[in-house]
Amino acid sequence: MSKPSERLKELGIALPPAPKPVASYVPYVRHGNLVFLSGQIPPMQDGKPAYQGQAGFEQRLEDAREAAKLCTINALSVAADAAGGIDNIERIVKVVVYVASHENFTGQHLVANGCSDLLKDIFGEAGRHARAAVGVAELPLDSTVEVDITLAVKT
Amino acid sequence: MSKPSERLKELGIALPPAPKPVASYVPYVRHGNLVFLSGQIPPMQDGKPAYQGQAGFEQRLEDAREAAKLCTINALSVAADAAGGIDNIERIVKVVVYVASHENFTGQHLVANGCSDLLKDIFGEAGRHARAAVGVAELPLDSTVEVDITLAVKT
Amino acid sequence: MSKPSERLKELGIALPPAPKPVASYVPYVRHGNLVFLSGQIPPMQDGKPAYQGQAGFEQRLEDAREAAKLCTINALSVAADAAGGIDNIERIVKVVVYVASHENFTGQHLVANGCSDLLKDIFGEAGRHARAAVGVAELPLDSTVEVDITLAVKT
Repeated sequence: MSKPSERLKELGIALPPAPKPVASYVPYVRHGNLVFLSGQIPPMQDGKPAYQGQAGFEQRLEDAREAAKLCTINALSVAADAAGGIDNIERIVKVVVYVASHENFTGQHLVANGCSDLLKDIFGEAGRHARAAVGVAELPLDSTVEVDITLAVKT
Repeated sequence: MSKPSERLKELGIALPPAPKPVASYVPYVRHGNLVFLSGQIPPMQDGKPAYQGQAGFEQRLEDAREAAKLCTINALSVAADAAGGIDNIERIVKVVVYVASHENFTGQHLVANGCSDLLKDIFGEAGRHARAAVGVAELPLDSTVEVDITLAVKT
Repeated sequence: MSKPSERLKELGIALPPAPKPVASYVPYVRHGNLVFLSGQIPPMQDGKPAYQGQAGFEQRLEDAREAAKLCTINALSVAADAAGGIDNIERIVKVVVYVASHENFTGQHLVANGCSDLLKDIFGEAGRHARAAVGVAELPLDSTVEVDITLAVKT
Protein backbone atom coordinates (compact mmCIF):
# COMPACT_ATOMS: atom_id res chain seq x y z
CA MET A 1 0.00 0.00 0.00
CA SER A 2 1.11 3.55 -0.72
CA LYS A 3 2.30 5.79 2.04
CA PRO A 4 -0.30 8.26 3.31
CA SER A 5 1.54 11.14 1.66
CA GLU A 6 1.35 9.28 -1.66
CA ARG A 7 -2.29 8.42 -1.14
CA LEU A 8 -3.08 12.07 -0.59
CA LYS A 9 -1.51 12.88 -3.96
CA GLU A 10 -3.34 10.02 -5.65
CA LEU A 11 -6.59 11.30 -4.18
CA GLY A 12 -5.80 14.84 -5.30
CA ILE A 13 -5.95 16.16 -1.75
CA ALA A 14 -3.69 19.01 -0.72
CA LEU A 15 -3.60 19.59 3.00
CA PRO A 16 -4.15 23.22 3.93
CA PRO A 17 -1.52 24.95 6.08
CA ALA A 18 -1.88 23.87 9.70
CA PRO A 19 -3.62 26.56 11.72
CA LYS A 20 -1.53 28.49 14.21
CA PRO A 21 -2.68 28.77 17.82
CA VAL A 22 -4.36 32.13 18.17
CA ALA A 23 -6.38 31.69 21.32
CA SER A 24 -6.34 30.10 24.75
CA TYR A 25 -6.55 26.71 23.14
CA VAL A 26 -4.34 25.06 20.57
CA PRO A 27 -4.82 22.85 17.50
CA TYR A 28 -3.39 19.80 19.28
CA VAL A 29 -1.77 18.52 22.43
CA ARG A 30 0.61 15.60 22.40
CA HIS A 31 0.84 13.31 25.42
CA GLY A 32 3.33 10.48 25.01
CA ASN A 33 2.66 9.32 21.48
CA LEU A 34 -1.04 10.11 21.67
CA VAL A 35 -2.15 13.32 19.99
CA PHE A 36 -5.43 14.97 20.90
CA LEU A 37 -6.69 17.31 18.19
CA SER A 38 -9.08 20.16 18.61
CA GLY A 39 -12.43 19.69 16.93
CA GLN A 40 -12.33 20.75 13.31
CA ILE A 41 -15.10 22.40 11.34
CA PRO A 42 -15.27 22.77 7.55
CA PRO A 43 -12.87 25.21 5.89
CA MET A 44 -13.85 28.86 5.95
CA GLN A 45 -15.10 30.44 2.74
CA ASP A 46 -15.92 34.13 2.63
CA GLY A 47 -15.63 34.25 6.39
CA LYS A 48 -17.94 31.36 7.20
CA PRO A 49 -17.77 27.56 7.23
CA ALA A 50 -18.18 26.02 3.78
CA TYR A 51 -21.10 23.96 5.10
CA GLN A 52 -23.57 25.57 7.45
CA GLY A 53 -26.90 24.54 8.87
CA GLN A 54 -28.43 21.28 9.99
CA ALA A 55 -28.20 17.96 8.21
CA GLY A 56 -31.70 17.02 7.14
CA PHE A 57 -32.68 20.64 6.68
CA GLU A 58 -30.22 23.13 5.17
CA GLN A 59 -27.90 20.30 4.12
CA ARG A 60 -28.73 17.00 2.50
CA LEU A 61 -27.10 13.82 3.74
CA GLU A 62 -24.58 13.75 0.89
CA ASP A 63 -23.57 17.35 1.52
CA ALA A 64 -23.15 16.77 5.23
CA ARG A 65 -20.98 13.76 4.38
CA GLU A 66 -18.83 15.94 2.18
CA ALA A 67 -18.61 18.43 5.05
CA ALA A 68 -17.34 15.62 7.28
CA LYS A 69 -14.68 14.83 4.69
CA LEU A 70 -13.53 18.45 4.59
CA CYS A 71 -13.39 18.66 8.39
CA THR A 72 -11.19 15.58 8.27
CA ILE A 73 -8.80 17.13 5.77
CA ASN A 74 -8.46 20.09 8.12
CA ALA A 75 -7.81 17.71 10.99
CA LEU A 76 -5.15 15.90 8.98
CA SER A 77 -3.27 19.12 8.38
CA VAL A 78 -3.05 19.52 12.14
CA ALA A 79 -2.21 15.86 12.61
CA ALA A 80 0.62 16.06 10.08
CA ASP A 81 1.97 19.10 11.89
CA ALA A 82 1.80 17.27 15.22
CA ALA A 83 3.42 14.11 13.87
CA GLY A 84 6.16 15.79 11.87
CA GLY A 85 4.62 14.71 8.59
CA ILE A 86 1.58 12.65 7.72
CA ASP A 87 3.66 9.52 7.21
CA ASN A 88 4.59 9.62 10.86
CA ILE A 89 1.02 8.95 11.93
CA GLU A 90 0.87 5.47 13.40
CA ARG A 91 -2.82 4.99 13.91
CA ILE A 92 -6.08 6.89 13.96
CA VAL A 93 -7.36 5.93 17.40
CA LYS A 94 -10.71 7.57 18.03
CA VAL A 95 -13.06 9.83 16.12
CA VAL A 96 -16.13 11.63 17.38
CA VAL A 97 -18.27 13.16 14.65
CA TYR A 98 -20.76 15.77 15.75
CA VAL A 99 -23.47 16.43 13.19
CA ALA A 100 -25.79 19.43 13.53
CA SER A 101 -29.06 17.61 13.02
CA HIS A 102 -32.61 18.58 12.24
CA GLU A 103 -35.28 16.71 14.13
CA ASN A 104 -35.92 13.34 12.54
CA PHE A 105 -32.53 13.27 10.85
CA THR A 106 -31.00 10.01 12.08
CA GLY A 107 -28.23 9.38 9.56
CA GLN A 108 -25.33 10.67 11.66
CA HIS A 109 -23.42 7.43 11.06
CA LEU A 110 -23.74 7.94 7.31
CA VAL A 111 -22.49 11.51 7.59
CA ALA A 112 -19.59 10.26 9.70
CA ASN A 113 -18.61 7.89 6.92
CA GLY A 114 -17.37 10.93 5.03
CA CYS A 115 -14.67 11.08 7.68
CA SER A 116 -14.13 7.36 8.22
CA ASP A 117 -13.94 6.40 4.57
CA LEU A 118 -11.34 9.07 3.89
CA LEU A 119 -9.19 7.96 6.81
CA LYS A 120 -9.28 4.36 5.65
CA ASP A 121 -8.57 5.46 2.10
CA ILE A 122 -5.46 7.37 3.17
CA PHE A 123 -4.08 5.18 5.95
CA GLY A 124 -5.46 1.73 5.17
CA GLU A 125 -5.77 -0.46 8.26
CA ALA A 126 -4.03 2.20 10.33
CA GLY A 127 -6.88 4.53 9.45
CA ARG A 128 -9.58 2.32 10.91
CA HIS A 129 -10.65 3.87 14.18
CA ALA A 130 -13.10 3.62 17.03
CA ARG A 131 -15.91 6.07 16.41
CA ALA A 132 -18.93 7.75 17.88
CA ALA A 133 -21.39 9.70 15.73
CA VAL A 134 -23.90 11.96 17.44
CA GLY A 135 -26.47 14.50 16.32
CA VAL A 136 -26.21 17.81 18.09
CA ALA A 137 -28.33 20.94 18.17
CA GLU A 138 -25.85 23.51 16.90
CA LEU A 139 -22.14 23.80 16.21
CA PRO A 140 -19.78 26.78 16.28
CA LEU A 141 -20.38 29.30 13.49
CA ASP A 142 -23.37 27.21 12.38
CA SER A 143 -21.08 24.48 11.03
CA THR A 144 -22.83 21.38 9.79
CA VAL A 145 -20.18 19.01 11.12
CA GLU A 146 -17.36 19.03 13.65
CA VAL A 147 -14.79 16.21 13.70
CA ASP A 148 -12.76 15.41 16.82
CA ILE A 149 -9.82 13.04 16.34
CA THR A 150 -7.35 11.32 18.67
CA LEU A 151 -4.40 9.56 17.05
CA ALA A 152 -1.08 7.90 17.75
CA VAL A 153 2.19 9.01 16.21
CA LYS A 154 5.34 7.01 15.53
CA THR A 155 8.08 7.56 18.08
CA MET B 1 -16.06 -10.14 45.26
CA SER B 2 -16.88 -12.36 42.30
CA LYS B 3 -14.98 -12.05 39.06
CA PRO B 4 -16.76 -10.04 36.36
CA SER B 5 -17.47 -13.21 34.39
CA GLU B 6 -19.15 -14.69 37.46
CA ARG B 7 -21.07 -11.49 38.15
CA LEU B 8 -22.44 -11.56 34.61
CA LYS B 9 -23.77 -15.06 35.25
CA GLU B 10 -25.22 -14.06 38.61
CA LEU B 11 -26.94 -11.13 36.93
CA GLY B 12 -28.25 -13.37 34.15
CA ILE B 13 -26.49 -11.36 31.48
CA ALA B 14 -25.15 -13.12 28.40
CA LEU B 15 -22.88 -10.96 26.30
CA PRO B 16 -23.83 -10.98 22.63
CA PRO B 17 -21.19 -11.96 20.08
CA ALA B 18 -18.75 -9.11 19.56
CA PRO B 19 -19.52 -7.29 16.32
CA LYS B 20 -17.08 -7.73 13.46
CA PRO B 21 -15.65 -4.67 11.72
CA VAL B 22 -17.69 -4.15 8.58
CA ALA B 23 -16.92 -0.56 7.68
CA SER B 24 -14.18 2.04 7.68
CA TYR B 25 -14.26 2.10 11.43
CA VAL B 26 -13.85 -0.69 13.94
CA PRO B 27 -15.44 -1.70 17.26
CA TYR B 28 -12.33 -0.76 19.23
CA VAL B 29 -8.75 0.44 19.02
CA ARG B 30 -6.17 -0.50 21.60
CA HIS B 31 -3.35 1.90 22.41
CA GLY B 32 -0.97 0.63 25.07
CA ASN B 33 -3.33 -0.82 27.63
CA LEU B 34 -6.03 1.73 26.95
CA VAL B 35 -8.92 0.57 24.77
CA PHE B 36 -11.14 3.08 22.99
CA LEU B 37 -14.51 1.59 22.05
CA SER B 38 -16.82 2.81 19.35
CA GLY B 39 -20.08 4.28 20.57
CA GLN B 40 -22.69 1.57 21.14
CA ILE B 41 -26.41 1.87 20.53
CA PRO B 42 -29.09 -0.53 21.82
CA PRO B 43 -29.28 -3.99 20.23
CA MET B 44 -31.08 -4.26 16.92
CA GLN B 45 -34.53 -5.84 16.88
CA ASP B 46 -36.35 -6.33 13.59
CA GLY B 47 -33.76 -4.17 11.90
CA LYS B 48 -33.93 -1.20 14.24
CA PRO B 49 -32.56 -0.26 17.68
CA ALA B 50 -34.58 -1.73 20.53
CA TYR B 51 -35.09 1.76 21.92
CA GLN B 52 -35.81 4.61 19.55
CA GLY B 53 -36.87 8.19 19.99
CA GLN B 54 -36.17 10.89 22.51
CA ALA B 55 -36.10 10.51 26.26
CA GLY B 56 -38.91 12.59 27.66
CA PHE B 57 -41.05 12.02 24.60
CA GLU B 58 -41.12 8.59 22.92
CA GLN B 59 -39.27 7.04 25.86
CA ARG B 60 -39.85 7.51 29.56
CA LEU B 61 -36.88 7.98 31.88
CA GLU B 62 -36.94 4.37 33.06
CA ASP B 63 -37.00 3.06 29.51
CA ALA B 64 -34.12 5.29 28.46
CA ARG B 65 -32.20 4.03 31.48
CA GLU B 66 -32.82 0.46 30.37
CA ALA B 67 -31.62 1.46 26.90
CA ALA B 68 -28.40 2.74 28.47
CA LYS B 69 -27.98 -0.62 30.20
CA LEU B 70 -28.39 -2.50 26.93
CA CYS B 71 -25.92 -0.22 25.15
CA THR B 72 -23.46 -1.03 27.92
CA ILE B 73 -23.92 -4.79 27.49
CA ASN B 74 -23.11 -4.34 23.80
CA ALA B 75 -20.06 -2.32 24.73
CA LEU B 76 -18.91 -5.01 27.15
CA SER B 77 -19.03 -7.63 24.44
CA VAL B 78 -16.59 -5.50 22.48
CA ALA B 79 -14.52 -4.79 25.58
CA ALA B 80 -14.25 -8.50 26.38
CA ASP B 81 -13.13 -9.15 22.82
CA ALA B 82 -10.52 -6.39 23.08
CA ALA B 83 -9.24 -7.57 26.47
CA GLY B 84 -9.17 -11.28 25.72
CA GLY B 85 -12.01 -11.96 28.13
CA ILE B 86 -14.01 -9.77 30.43
CA ASP B 87 -11.90 -10.73 33.44
CA ASN B 88 -8.92 -9.08 31.77
CA ILE B 89 -10.50 -5.66 32.04
CA GLU B 90 -8.53 -3.68 34.58
CA ARG B 91 -10.61 -0.54 34.89
CA ILE B 92 -13.46 1.30 33.25
CA VAL B 93 -11.83 4.69 32.72
CA LYS B 94 -14.28 7.06 31.05
CA VAL B 95 -17.88 6.89 29.88
CA VAL B 96 -19.78 9.41 27.79
CA VAL B 97 -23.50 8.78 27.64
CA TYR B 98 -25.37 10.58 24.86
CA VAL B 99 -29.11 10.70 25.43
CA ALA B 100 -31.45 11.77 22.63
CA SER B 101 -33.49 14.29 24.59
CA HIS B 102 -36.77 16.08 24.12
CA GLU B 103 -36.80 19.71 25.10
CA ASN B 104 -37.17 20.09 28.83
CA PHE B 105 -35.90 16.58 29.53
CA THR B 106 -33.00 17.16 31.91
CA GLY B 107 -32.50 13.73 33.48
CA GLN B 108 -29.53 12.64 31.35
CA HIS B 109 -27.56 11.77 34.49
CA LEU B 110 -30.35 9.46 35.61
CA VAL B 111 -30.45 7.77 32.22
CA ALA B 112 -26.69 7.37 32.38
CA ASN B 113 -27.02 5.55 35.68
CA GLY B 114 -28.37 2.61 33.68
CA CYS B 115 -24.84 2.31 32.35
CA SER B 116 -22.92 3.30 35.47
CA ASP B 117 -24.83 1.08 37.88
CA LEU B 118 -24.31 -1.95 35.67
CA LEU B 119 -20.58 -1.32 35.39
CA LYS B 120 -20.23 -1.02 39.14
CA ASP B 121 -22.38 -4.10 39.62
CA ILE B 122 -20.15 -6.18 37.36
CA PHE B 123 -16.69 -4.79 38.12
CA GLY B 124 -17.04 -3.35 41.62
CA GLU B 125 -14.56 -0.57 42.32
CA ALA B 126 -12.86 -1.22 38.97
CA GLY B 127 -16.16 -0.38 37.31
CA ARG B 128 -16.39 3.11 38.78
CA HIS B 129 -15.53 5.55 36.03
CA ALA B 130 -15.31 9.20 35.12
CA ARG B 131 -18.45 10.16 33.25
CA ALA B 132 -20.14 12.80 31.18
CA ALA B 133 -23.87 12.66 30.39
CA VAL B 134 -25.24 14.94 27.70
CA GLY B 135 -28.55 15.37 25.94
CA VAL B 136 -28.30 15.43 22.17
CA ALA B 137 -30.72 16.15 19.37
CA GLU B 138 -30.65 12.86 17.51
CA LEU B 139 -28.62 9.66 17.43
CA PRO B 140 -27.88 7.19 14.62
CA LEU B 141 -30.91 5.15 13.54
CA ASP B 142 -33.03 7.16 15.98
CA SER B 143 -31.42 5.39 18.96
CA THR B 144 -32.45 6.71 22.34
CA VAL B 145 -28.98 6.30 23.85
CA GLU B 146 -25.40 5.89 22.70
CA VAL B 147 -22.68 4.85 25.16
CA ASP B 148 -19.01 5.60 24.50
CA ILE B 149 -16.50 3.83 26.79
CA THR B 150 -12.74 4.02 27.30
CA LEU B 151 -11.17 1.33 29.49
CA ALA B 152 -7.87 -0.14 30.60
CA VAL B 153 -6.95 -3.78 30.15
CA LYS B 154 -4.55 -5.93 32.16
CA THR B 155 -1.19 -6.39 30.51
CA MET C 1 5.23 33.11 35.80
CA SER C 2 3.44 32.43 39.06
CA LYS C 3 2.57 28.90 40.12
CA PRO C 4 -1.06 27.91 39.47
CA SER C 5 -1.80 28.04 43.20
CA GLU C 6 -0.51 31.62 43.28
CA ARG C 7 -2.42 32.56 40.15
CA LEU C 8 -5.63 31.31 41.76
CA LYS C 9 -5.01 33.65 44.69
CA GLU C 10 -4.16 36.55 42.39
CA LEU C 11 -7.39 35.91 40.50
CA GLY C 12 -9.36 35.71 43.75
CA ILE C 13 -10.52 32.17 42.99
CA ALA C 14 -11.01 29.72 45.85
CA LEU C 15 -11.49 26.15 44.71
CA PRO C 16 -14.51 24.50 46.30
CA PRO C 17 -13.98 21.24 48.21
CA ALA C 18 -13.54 18.36 45.76
CA PRO C 19 -16.74 16.35 45.50
CA LYS C 20 -16.76 12.89 47.04
CA PRO C 21 -17.85 9.91 44.96
CA VAL C 22 -21.47 9.23 45.86
CA ALA C 23 -22.65 7.12 42.97
CA SER C 24 -21.57 4.43 40.53
CA TYR C 25 -19.24 6.88 38.90
CA VAL C 26 -16.43 8.95 40.36
CA PRO C 27 -15.09 12.48 39.93
CA TYR C 28 -11.96 11.26 38.14
CA VAL C 29 -10.00 8.23 37.04
CA ARG C 30 -6.25 8.28 36.72
CA HIS C 31 -4.52 6.10 34.15
CA GLY C 32 -0.76 6.45 34.11
CA ASN C 33 -0.29 10.18 34.41
CA LEU C 34 -3.43 10.98 32.46
CA VAL C 35 -6.46 11.98 34.51
CA PHE C 36 -9.94 11.77 33.05
CA LEU C 37 -12.42 13.99 34.89
CA SER C 38 -16.16 13.59 34.99
CA GLY C 39 -18.11 16.31 33.24
CA GLN C 40 -18.68 19.28 35.51
CA ILE C 41 -21.74 21.50 35.61
CA PRO C 42 -22.01 24.89 37.33
CA PRO C 43 -22.06 24.96 41.14
CA MET C 44 -25.37 24.21 42.83
CA GLN C 45 -27.27 27.10 44.37
CA ASP C 46 -30.49 26.46 46.24
CA GLY C 47 -30.49 22.91 44.92
CA LYS C 48 -30.04 23.71 41.26
CA PRO C 49 -27.18 24.67 38.93
CA ALA C 50 -26.27 28.35 39.13
CA TYR C 51 -26.84 28.65 35.38
CA GLN C 52 -29.79 26.87 33.81
CA GLY C 53 -31.40 26.94 30.41
CA GLN C 54 -30.15 27.30 26.88
CA ALA C 55 -27.57 29.75 25.64
CA GLY C 56 -29.29 32.09 23.25
CA PHE C 57 -32.57 31.84 25.13
CA GLU C 58 -32.59 31.75 28.94
CA GLN C 59 -28.92 32.72 29.06
CA ARG C 60 -27.08 35.38 27.09
CA LEU C 61 -23.68 34.59 25.60
CA GLU C 62 -21.79 36.38 28.37
CA ASP C 63 -23.71 34.50 31.06
CA ALA C 64 -23.10 31.17 29.40
CA ARG C 65 -19.41 32.06 29.22
CA GLU C 66 -19.42 32.77 32.94
CA ALA C 67 -21.13 29.42 33.46
CA ALA C 68 -18.30 27.75 31.54
CA LYS C 69 -15.82 29.46 33.84
CA LEU C 70 -17.61 28.20 36.94
CA CYS C 71 -17.77 24.65 35.56
CA THR C 72 -14.03 24.89 35.06
CA ILE C 73 -13.41 25.97 38.64
CA ASN C 74 -15.36 22.92 39.77
CA ALA C 75 -13.29 20.75 37.46
CA LEU C 76 -10.08 22.22 38.85
CA SER C 77 -11.08 21.29 42.38
CA VAL C 78 -11.31 17.70 41.20
CA ALA C 79 -8.12 17.99 39.20
CA ALA C 80 -6.23 19.33 42.22
CA ASP C 81 -7.52 16.43 44.26
CA ALA C 82 -6.41 13.96 41.59
CA ALA C 83 -2.98 15.52 41.18
CA GLY C 84 -2.22 16.01 44.85
CA GLY C 85 -2.42 19.77 44.53
CA ILE C 86 -3.04 22.09 41.64
CA ASP C 87 0.68 22.77 41.20
CA ASN C 88 1.16 19.12 40.31
CA ILE C 89 -0.88 19.48 37.14
CA GLU C 90 1.48 19.13 34.21
CA ARG C 91 -0.76 19.99 31.30
CA ILE C 92 -4.39 20.47 30.41
CA VAL C 93 -4.69 18.04 27.50
CA LYS C 94 -8.22 18.09 26.14
CA VAL C 95 -11.42 19.94 26.88
CA VAL C 96 -14.89 19.30 25.52
CA VAL C 97 -17.38 22.05 26.28
CA TYR C 98 -21.03 21.12 25.87
CA VAL C 99 -23.32 24.14 25.62
CA ALA C 100 -27.10 23.75 25.90
CA SER C 101 -28.05 25.77 22.85
CA HIS C 102 -31.18 27.35 21.53
CA GLU C 103 -31.75 27.00 17.81
CA ASN C 104 -29.72 29.57 15.91
CA PHE C 105 -27.27 30.03 18.76
CA THR C 106 -23.91 29.31 17.15
CA GLY C 107 -21.45 30.89 19.59
CA GLN C 108 -20.42 27.70 21.39
CA HIS C 109 -16.76 28.52 20.81
CA LEU C 110 -17.23 31.89 22.51
CA VAL C 111 -18.94 30.25 25.47
CA ALA C 112 -16.08 27.75 25.65
CA ASN C 113 -13.61 30.61 25.93
CA GLY C 114 -14.90 31.09 29.48
CA CYS C 115 -13.19 27.78 30.20
CA SER C 116 -10.17 28.13 27.93
CA ASP C 117 -9.24 31.65 28.98
CA LEU C 118 -9.32 30.70 32.65
CA LEU C 119 -7.12 27.67 32.08
CA LYS C 120 -4.56 29.73 30.23
CA ASP C 121 -4.76 32.43 32.88
CA ILE C 122 -3.99 29.94 35.64
CA PHE C 123 -1.56 27.57 33.98
CA GLY C 124 -0.01 29.66 31.20
CA GLU C 125 1.29 27.56 28.31
CA ALA C 126 0.51 24.39 30.25
CA GLY C 127 -3.12 25.45 30.29
CA ARG C 128 -3.46 25.61 26.53
CA HIS C 129 -5.42 22.58 25.45
CA ALA C 130 -7.01 20.84 22.51
CA ARG C 131 -10.71 21.63 22.51
CA ALA C 132 -14.06 20.80 21.03
CA ALA C 133 -17.11 23.01 21.59
CA VAL C 134 -20.52 21.65 20.71
CA GLY C 135 -24.10 22.79 21.14
CA VAL C 136 -26.37 20.20 22.68
CA ALA C 137 -30.09 19.96 23.28
CA GLU C 138 -30.17 19.60 27.05
CA LEU C 139 -27.78 18.96 29.92
CA PRO C 140 -28.28 17.32 33.32
CA LEU C 141 -30.43 19.36 35.70
CA ASP C 142 -30.97 21.90 32.92
CA SER C 143 -27.38 23.12 33.22
CA THR C 144 -26.34 25.66 30.63
CA VAL C 145 -22.82 24.24 30.26
CA GLU C 146 -20.93 21.04 31.02
CA VAL C 147 -17.13 20.95 30.85
CA ASP C 148 -15.25 17.69 30.34
CA ILE C 149 -11.48 17.82 30.92
CA THR C 150 -8.60 15.40 30.43
CA LEU C 151 -5.23 16.40 31.89
CA ALA C 152 -1.75 15.15 32.67
CA VAL C 153 -0.23 15.19 36.14
CA LYS C 154 3.41 15.36 37.18
CA THR C 155 4.84 12.02 38.20
